[in-house]
Amino acid sequence: MSNPFDKIGIVGAGSMGGSMAMLFAENGLQVSVYDVAEQNIDSLSDRLKDPTSGLAPDLHQRVAGFKDLPQFMDSLGGKDADKLLVFSIPHGSAADKVIAQIRPHLSRGDIILDGGNEWYENAQRRQGELAPDGIAYLSMGVSGGYQSARRGPSISPSGDKGALDRVMPLLQKVAARDVKSGKPCVANLGPAGCGHYVKMVHNGIEQGILGVVNEAWELLYKCLHTDLDTIAQTFKKWEAEGELKRNFLVGIGADICGRHKENGEPGHVVNEVQDKVVQDADDTEGTTGIWSVMEAAKRHVSAPTIASAHFFRIASADRAQRMQVVEALGESIGAARKQHLDEKARTEFVEDLRLAVYCATLASFSQGLNLIARASADEGWNVSLAECMQIWREGCIIRSEYIADVLQPVLETSAGVMNVLTLQPLAEEIKRTVPHLRKVVQHALEWNAHIPALSASLEYFKYCAGKHLPSQFMEAELDYFGAHSYDLKSEGDGEVKKGKHHFEWKPA
Amino acid sequence: MSNPFDKIGIVGAGSMGGSMAMLFAENGLQVSVYDVAEQNIDSLSDRLKDPTSGLAPDLHQRVAGFKDLPQFMDSLGGKDADKLLVFSIPHGSAADKVIAQIRPHLSRGDIILDGGNEWYENAQRRQGELAPDGIAYLSMGVSGGYQSARRGPSISPSGDKGALDRVMPLLQKVAARDVKSGKPCVANLGPAGCGHYVKMVHNGIEQGILGVVNEAWELLYKCLHTDLDTIAQTFKKWEAEGELKRNFLVGIGADICGRHKENGEPGHVVNEVQDKVVQDADDTEGTTGIWSVMEAAKRHVSAPTIASAHFFRIASADRAQRMQVVEALGESIGAARKQHLDEKARTEFVEDLRLAVYCATLASFSQGLNLIARASADEGWNVSLAECMQIWREGCIIRSEYIADVLQPVLETSAGVMNVLTLQPLAEEIKRTVPHLRKVVQHALEWNAHIPALSASLEYFKYCAGKHLPSQFMEAELDYFGAHSYDLKSEGDGEVKKGKHHFEWKPA
Repeated sequence: MSNPFDKIGIVGAGSMGGSMAMLFAENGLQVSVYDVAEQNIDSLSDRLKDPTSGLAPDLHQRVAGFKDLPQFMDSLGGKDADKLLVFSIPHGSAADKVIAQIRPHLSRGDIILDGGNEWYENAQRRQGELAPDGIAYLSMGVSGGYQSARRGPSISPSGDKGALDRVMPLLQKVAARDVKSGKPCVANLGPAGCGHYVKMVHNGIEQGILGVVNEAWELLYKCLHTDLDTIAQTFKKWEAEGELKRNFLVGIGADICGRHKENGEPGHVVNEVQDKVVQDADDTEGTTGIWSVMEAAKRHVSAPTIASAHFFRIASADRAQRMQVVEALGESIGAARKQHLDEKARTEFVEDLRLAVYCATLASFSQGLNLIARASADEGWNVSLAECMQIWREGCIIRSEYIADVLQPVLETSAGVMNVLTLQPLAEEIKRTVPHLRKVVQHALEWNAHIPALSASLEYFKYCAGKHLPSQFMEAELDYFGAHSYDLKSEGDGEVKKGKHHFEWKPA
Repeated sequence: MSNPFDKIGIVGAGSMGGSMAMLFAENGLQVSVYDVAEQNIDSLSDRLKDPTSGLAPDLHQRVAGFKDLPQFMDSLGGKDADKLLVFSIPHGSAADKVIAQIRPHLSRGDIILDGGNEWYENAQRRQGELAPDGIAYLSMGVSGGYQSARRGPSISPSGDKGALDRVMPLLQKVAARDVKSGKPCVANLGPAGCGHYVKMVHNGIEQGILGVVNEAWELLYKCLHTDLDTIAQTFKKWEAEGELKRNFLVGIGADICGRHKENGEPGHVVNEVQDKVVQDADDTEGTTGIWSVMEAAKRHVSAPTIASAHFFRIASADRAQRMQVVEALGESIGAARKQHLDEKARTEFVEDLRLAVYCATLASFSQGLNLIARASADEGWNVSLAECMQIWREGCIIRSEYIADVLQPVLETSAGVMNVLTLQPLAEEIKRTVPHLRKVVQHALEWNAHIPALSASLEYFKYCAGKHLPSQFMEAELDYFGAHSYDLKSEGDGEVKKGKHHFEWKPA
């Protein structure tokens, strides 16, 4: 099916929207861009006309910037033309406001692709509001940051099938492609909202992996006092082959560690960066990470890697308050200690660490996939986890070729699986690498390194694979004071519902 | 001020409602009880008339059971009398339905005390709906399980001040009392909803402590293969004095471990209990634990002890699915290993464990109190954390006398504190006991015991007290692909908002 749209309108000319404007223009579309922040339009326009930008000299002829909304809408062909719009704006009320403003200019057959990190219920609501007028609102998760948005992002769309069929040829053209198969990293995931949900979980998995790689970095830099250029080489090797092959967050970690300050100044850029991650705490961009934790709790899916990495970030954000805690508690509780290891021990530890990062990354993926499986079943979305893995093969932040190679084939033959830890190919990888994760956690404890995500991942596998958990005691405590009642061991596994037995441990 | 009510109507005659009926009757009120489940009324009535029940022989004359709602409402004095009602029913739609049913019988001056585990926003909504008619809907967190509801629970009420003033003398009469000061464990916490919020957080803290005590139990029982009667003695000693003095969950743990099967059968009751905790997973009772995790994430408060204990429970619930994971992953990853320690090492470990349980319990309290502080500031409730500690001194599940003695005095002089870890008396206790927590976590790793809450608590203290966290690297990664921007170390602690600097690590 050929792409019926030769024009596209982008609302939002920030780093993501501006990048997508160029990407669509390079793919032959006439692009109109609108932004309430006029300076975003000006800088995009400057960049398009800058002869040193590396852009095709005539590209600027296919991108028109607008500071006036009615003019922007007119440029797409007027009220009666079939119009295609992309939102690259903050979620929530900002998107609602834009819809209200453009509504008088919309007509039957128009399509809105909302590329923001939107809450899935907002997406469902908007689809419901616009559908009666024949206007299609589609979820469109876009991952990979601004570099990918420029060259080809990972795209997770969902919504009205007819409308999605109309834009799919275009999305397949601009999306990232799997380097091996050449297949595009985009697929119709299902009904309204679930595309945004899958993107939210992508960001939750990202949060877990970021925590894990961050902890590995501290172990190398602060504990083993490896210099940053050497860490850059280590991460580069990790990313080149084996279990962490083409792991995006390891790969950019190599770039970061290798980046010296500019203009001949001594030192590395990363050493100038303050040790606080504020994007969750100030609610500007981190809501998907917050939502992932909330959704896991709400839908009864264990997600401790994702949650522990999140709580670490949150605690890092308010540095002034943290310094008051340091004042009260002293510096030693929270200080990672330098170690001396001989060459052999160091080499062995670094290899353990590589496999520990892999193993904990599998924990983060498992938790995220289980959350999608649960939400899909709850909501009747019928999302294919195999398609999620295909979408995440390239262009996104959780890209990890080896892991996609482990997971995608088995997910293709396991439709409806509710817990991916039951899948043998994944289980084999975990079995093989948990011992390395355990060794790293033990060393890190000795060295007092910060390992919230690594240790939570280890505990996760331990209790998920626990044939006999201590929770018999917990269940007895709940029955003691709450008369919650329990199942008997002699009754077998039982169902996931209130047990039949109460023991009167202490009469009221 | 004397109590203006001589009658009280209780909706819900389950284990909590039935217990409260007897408690109010013993305190001189004429009690009417209604339940849609008629068998609950019958068993309450049977119990009241049972000569072996230990109840005062004339108590049944002050408790009348009703199976008909209009008759129940009439028994409280008719439409125009000032009526006092207590709800002991499931939260959400069940309570809404009851309100709709009794609404025609209510009039100006009536008071509803909602004693369910209600979501605070539902409480706020109901107060708003009933207030225009002069009917007061008050939040009333009730903790301590059915034994406490019978003898005197811990009560956290909030709502209209005038109405609360009218019922406070009664609540003070029936509430638990601090054994040392004789002060009742009840206080007006503030506006509508916050009483339920504080009870929700109580249950979150409870969830964390339950996890911690449960992990200690496994270490003693499964790793050190201590027999259950000896563990009963150990827990009894822990609860008798020192840091775990009158810690409720340790105390009932002693009872549980000491409880042999009845009728001369060999073995302990706890060994018959299946190892799964379903009350979160089936949504019957565990919603407060789920909400606590969700609220912590939403309000940017680190709560890893509470969350990790929660995710462990969740994973334990579906035993049939867990056995499939065991099948795939093998038994060794999740099996705690038996150890032999000589007498000296064992004694030393048990003492480390006692202090580790204390230290991790402090983590759970800190996270809960910080969540209340944050919510109170966000919502303008002005909740006193010192009053929360007073309410929790007796009659509730998180009762812990030593901890109340540490926290309450300093909270009384620290109004407005946003992070209790900055309070020196608490910090001193953490400093003193973190080394024991670390030792226990190290042993437990070696022995492959399940320690999600203990290890999460240790990591929590480590990052909260981290003068230099590895998050400088995480912040650089976020800036690399997301242009999230950062603060410079040279700029000091900075604010909790998006930084001013972006480095173009890799141009788009």
